Amino acid sequence: MTEPMEGIYTPNITPIDMRGRIDEDKLCGYVDWLIDKGVHGLYPNGSTGEFTRFTAEERRRIIDVLCKHVGDRVPILAGAAEANVRETIDACDSYGAMGVRAVAIVAPFYYKLSQEAVFAYFKEIADAVSVDVTLYNIPLFASPIEVQTVRRLALECPKVVGIKDSSGDIPHMMRMIAAVRPQRPEFSFLTGWDAALAPMLLIGCNGGTNATSGVVPELTRAIYDACSRGQWDRAMQLQYRLLPLFDAMIEQPEFPEGFRRGALTRGWDLGRSRQPLSDNQIRTAQETQQQLSQILSELAQWMPDIIPEESSGGTTESTDDFIESVVREVMQQLRRNG
Amino acid sequence: MTEPMEGIYTPNITPIDMRGRIDEDKLCGYVDWLIDKGVHGLYPNGSTGEFTRFTAEERRRIIDVLCKHVGDRVPILAGAAEANVRETIDACDSYGAMGVRAVAIVAPFYYKLSQEAVFAYFKEIADAVSVDVTLYNIPLFASPIEVQTVRRLALECPKVVGIKDSSGDIPHMMRMIAAVRPQRPEFSFLTGWDAALAPMLLIGCNGGTNATSGVVPELTRAIYDACSRGQWDRAMQLQYRLLPLFDAMIEQPEFPEGFRRGALTRGWDLGRSRQPLSDNQIRTAQETQQQLSQILSELAQWMPDIIPEESSGGTTESTDDFIESVVREVMQQLRRNG
Amino acid sequence: MTEPMEGIYTPNITPIDMRGRIDEDKLCGYVDWLIDKGVHGLYPNGSTGEFTRFTAEERRRIIDVLCKHVGDRVPILAGAAEANVRETIDACDSYGAMGVRAVAIVAPFYYKLSQEAVFAYFKEIADAVSVDVTLYNIPLFASPIEVQTVRRLALECPKVVGIKDSSGDIPHMMRMIAAVRPQRPEFSFLTGWDAALAPMLLIGCNGGTNATSGVVPELTRAIYDACSRGQWDRAMQLQYRLLPLFDAMIEQPEFPEGFRRGALTRGWDLGRSRQPLSDNQIRTAQETQQQLSQILSELAQWMPDIIPEESSGGTTESTDDFIESVVREVMQQLRRNG
Amino acid sequence: MTEPMEGIYTPNITPIDMRGRIDEDKLCGYVDWLIDKGVHGLYPNGSTGEFTRFTAEERRRIIDVLCKHVGDRVPILAGAAEANVRETIDACDSYGAMGVRAVAIVAPFYYKLSQEAVFAYFKEIADAVSVDVTLYNIPLFASPIEVQTVRRLALECPKVVGIKDSSGDIPHMMRMIAAVRPQRPEFSFLTGWDAALAPMLLIGCNGGTNATSGVVPELTRAIYDACSRGQWDRAMQLQYRLLPLFDAMIEQPEFPEGFRRGALTRGWDLGRSRQPLSDNQIRTAQETQQQLSQILSELAQWMPDIIPEESSGGTTESTDDFIESVVREVMQQLRRNG
Repeated sequence: MTEPMEGIYTPNITPIDMRGRIDEDKLCGYVDWLIDKGVHGLYPNGSTGEFTRFTAEERRRIIDVLCKHVGDRVPILAGAAEANVRETIDACDSYGAMGVRAVAIVAPFYYKLSQEAVFAYFKEIADAVSVDVTLYNIPLFASPIEVQTVRRLALECPKVVGIKDSSGDIPHMMRMIAAVRPQRPEFSFLTGWDAALAPMLLIGCNGGTNATSGVVPELTRAIYDACSRGQWDRAMQLQYRLLPLFDAMIEQPEFPEGFRRGALTRGWDLGRSRQPLSDNQIRTAQETQQQLSQILSELAQWMPDIIPEESSGGTTESTDDFIESVVREVMQQLRRNG
Repeated sequence: MTEPMEGIYTPNITPIDMRGRIDEDKLCGYVDWLIDKGVHGLYPNGSTGEFTRFTAEERRRIIDVLCKHVGDRVPILAGAAEANVRETIDACDSYGAMGVRAVAIVAPFYYKLSQEAVFAYFKEIADAVSVDVTLYNIPLFASPIEVQTVRRLALECPKVVGIKDSSGDIPHMMRMIAAVRPQRPEFSFLTGWDAALAPMLLIGCNGGTNATSGVVPELTRAIYDACSRGQWDRAMQLQYRLLPLFDAMIEQPEFPEGFRRGALTRGWDLGRSRQPLSDNQIRTAQETQQQLSQILSELAQWMPDIIPEESSGGTTESTDDFIESVVREVMQQLRRNG
Repeated sequence: MTEPMEGIYTPNITPIDMRGRIDEDKLCGYVDWLIDKGVHGLYPNGSTGEFTRFTAEERRRIIDVLCKHVGDRVPILAGAAEANVRETIDACDSYGAMGVRAVAIVAPFYYKLSQEAVFAYFKEIADAVSVDVTLYNIPLFASPIEVQTVRRLALECPKVVGIKDSSGDIPHMMRMIAAVRPQRPEFSFLTGWDAALAPMLLIGCNGGTNATSGVVPELTRAIYDACSRGQWDRAMQLQYRLLPLFDAMIEQPEFPEGFRRGALTRGWDLGRSRQPLSDNQIRTAQETQQQLSQILSELAQWMPDIIPEESSGGTTESTDDFIESVVREVMQQLRRNG
Repeated sequence: MTEPMEGIYTPNITPIDMRGRIDEDKLCGYVDWLIDKGVHGLYPNGSTGEFTRFTAEERRRIIDVLCKHVGDRVPILAGAAEANVRETIDACDSYGAMGVRAVAIVAPFYYKLSQEAVFAYFKEIADAVSVDVTLYNIPLFASPIEVQTVRRLALECPKVVGIKDSSGDIPHMMRMIAAVRPQRPEFSFLTGWDAALAPMLLIGCNGGTNATSGVVPELTRAIYDACSRGQWDRAMQLQYRLLPLFDAMIEQPEFPEGFRRGALTRGWDLGRSRQPLSDNQIRTAQETQQQLSQILSELAQWMPDIIPEESSGGTTESTDDFIESVVREVMQQLRRNG
């Protein structure tokens, strides 16, 4: 039996150069930084990676580049949804050969499918591929995957090894865990809704694919660590710190523009999305960026005082390092930006 | 500064006799049982109490009867929404004179109001009454009360002392707490969504108004106690136990029929709702009841084994009592039913 | 077999005096004006009449006053929903005794009911009352009444004589007509969505309960007349004229404040709703009123030119009267307002 | 100034062979039949054509094959949405060179975009291409295109020549027409919601892209013809005939499987969608097909009696032909199926 996938996987933004092409050097540099800051894995070609805005060839190239560059430093969960089942199966097998830990396949979107159809879709894929598959439930954008469908797939398809759920609905996640874990204890439950990360870990999730970890990997990681150690008070303090940052980025009208701006605030200019932006939109995004600078600056200044019980302890040395490094880097960057 | 309202308030069902009238004796007996089982307060004339299906006089009578009967054993949070502001203010003042701890006022329903209108409505009431007021946010049924509206009311109206929120949305509750608590530390945040009770307590709620506590008061109370003591693992085990019970009752088509059936399974025949039920609906409700009997029976049998770390400890004596009493009572009732 | 209810019923606003009481004199004067302008019936205690914001006694008083004042000039369709089935049946029978043509009963609101429950509710009422009953479907505010439920009620309950549908969904109305009319040819289908009045009459509706007819009764009536005569081009020209007026009133945030402002623009100061309004809201409502003045002024000035084929014909004399009277009255009022 | 696009465009199903490939011969035969039955244009690569389930190369091939095969018999409106703006512009220009009348571009889907982003997206495309562009609003599946966005695009982009709207919302279409037609009288408004075709033509639409015309092209065309001649009673009789057929196909869970089954009932076996279907789903689809056979059989038998005023007249000869041909073909096919 395989080990479950655990920890914080970063659904990384795809860097774009001035001419609208994938900036592969930037991509490699950015994931080096993420890995260095402690994320447990990468999740390219997710929603944050804007997979729908690239061609099939480009999506394949992204995985190829990352697999070669990352090596066995951290596992890669590769978004692999293509136009139809046949294309998706081909992509899955290619990515498996490239060395990804697993693929993530979003439920069919555009058309709203019945649960029977969602089941049939994943079943056909899972029975054909040789790589581990995680389901990707994001009801805001795609056909929902209901609890009983997850259960059927978990029981009938050994290749289905987990689900990433971005609904943010705690009882829904509990229902899935209750429906699957007794028979598939190694099945991974990953939350994609950063605003509820600590409560999701409390109820038994194995980790998350969290876009904030592409901007403040130290903080997202620290929440995970606090939860792993059962330091729930500390986890909640950090979670309350993460929330306004997440809100500012997710409420920026053009997802994932807020996260691009967040990365920029940390010094990573990952270029402009392929989605055209009007002058008005750029102004709005710049306001978001100023807001993010403010939040990050406060985060850097105030965190030591707000978490007093951590300031002297032994087991929390790494955390102090984390806070200091956030402070240092954010302040440096703000000075550079200012 | 007043103390915040804390703990588990039961939004109690309103017992109905064979002729469709409020059964006042049954009401008194039922709340005695609830208080005896450990609920911290009562919440009559809530959604579970079907306040919309009674006349203004009947709603007043319910509060009067309960205040006299309960005395100072537990505080009463009285639902007080009437047809318009003037009638609502009158009801509030009457209930205050009767001795309730506070009133709960649902956001205007039927019409969908803007936030400005929701604010104006609560402000006019809160400025006029002499009793403490809690806001009641239940976006499924009534106009939502958004975070900034809660904040404005908390800052401008000293009589507004808390919010009951039935959205079940964890980040939403966190946003409200973050927006209000620094300036109003005694403001109460109560969750009405039993399926997320433990996570809601983790993020800082003061308690809940939970319909399950009208059926398994021991279990709802035990979750609260575990959270209060920081026993998060145990809280989650109990929460996973509560979930299928809650789901079975909430998914029963005609709310709150599922909870009436739940109470019946515990031996409390609270009569038929005033909402007519067809033969088909009665059959469905009977199936729900059988399902509830099954869940309660399993709960009673298996709880000791599932919570092994509690089975020998000193601080958990009360919990063992609780489990044994649930076992004993449920089994007795099932034998009577069977 | 009774005749179907036909034509334009005005869901009239309830006038309120300075002290927040129903202004009965104003109510009588206002409906005299409506009847004089040609509406076919009145619909008090509807959504536009804010039935939920009055007490049971006040609702009863409104019907009593209107029945006595209106006499047999036009039929009255009386909103009769009360807190529960028993109270509703009592209200229905009282209103029948007062002489209303029929009662209108909105589907249960606040709680979201299943179709089985919606059926059971209306069935119990319809089997008990001695007055004709129309169903009132307004899915925006209350539990929807689906096609098969309407069909079951139409076939099983002779006292159910029609449905008022405010969904504005043309195919939905067609499905209801197709499901009921073959077996109940006298069953009335009335649309409550003014923005689609002419298309709704095209597909076979018998009329409408249209809030615009409380503001521009001449125009709403003229659309009905044009459709009745098969003058579809003219009907559409008038419908295009009605649309911006309806939109300005319905989009005003606090329904039915926009319609109160519309009536004020025609010279009828019907007072302030019982729903509190903040200063911000009053400002917004005043802007709506200015917008309405502008639209009504343009309507008055341009209508003769825009409908040239009507300017000389014989059958359209009444219409010319209508246009002239709108022009005259609106201009007079605007001079008074200005 | 170009002429507006008018009439019934068929959003044609894409035939698939036994091996899952596009069946080009079947495609050519099927569109020959459609053109022969009187549709005014074709709309390949629409939602009914399942454009998202083909690769970019396949989508291009479909347009190429159709342009060559159809020639100038009827105009082609080619769905041209690709992964991003650059790819979409390339597709548009290719299709223009192939000879399409215009391209149709669906609003961005998966991500929910703001109106500012929707505008920016279409503006960038429309300013770059050399072919006429129609907007495609289908809020069920993609980001909605609001009235003011349509207006801005119509006023700023001469290449934007129309909109296909599948919302089925009559007042929304009226608002678009009122906002655009005065300044762009040749701008086309096409409805994609067959259930409201006749009312949509009444309010001024130029035609429709209607999936029913891929199954009963005679009937959809007859509705258009009746409306064009101002025969509104007849149009409504036909519309009431079309409705149950449309409902049976659209309510079939897996869109556009219902329309595939409808075509099969007419003798066109267009193969299986690329979306996998479970055994349960196939059973459901077969039941739909039986239901469709029944409806088509009744349509064929009863239409002559139901439309008595048409049975002897001169101007309606073509209609009699239509009815007889439907009768003849449907009965023949049913005998073959049976």
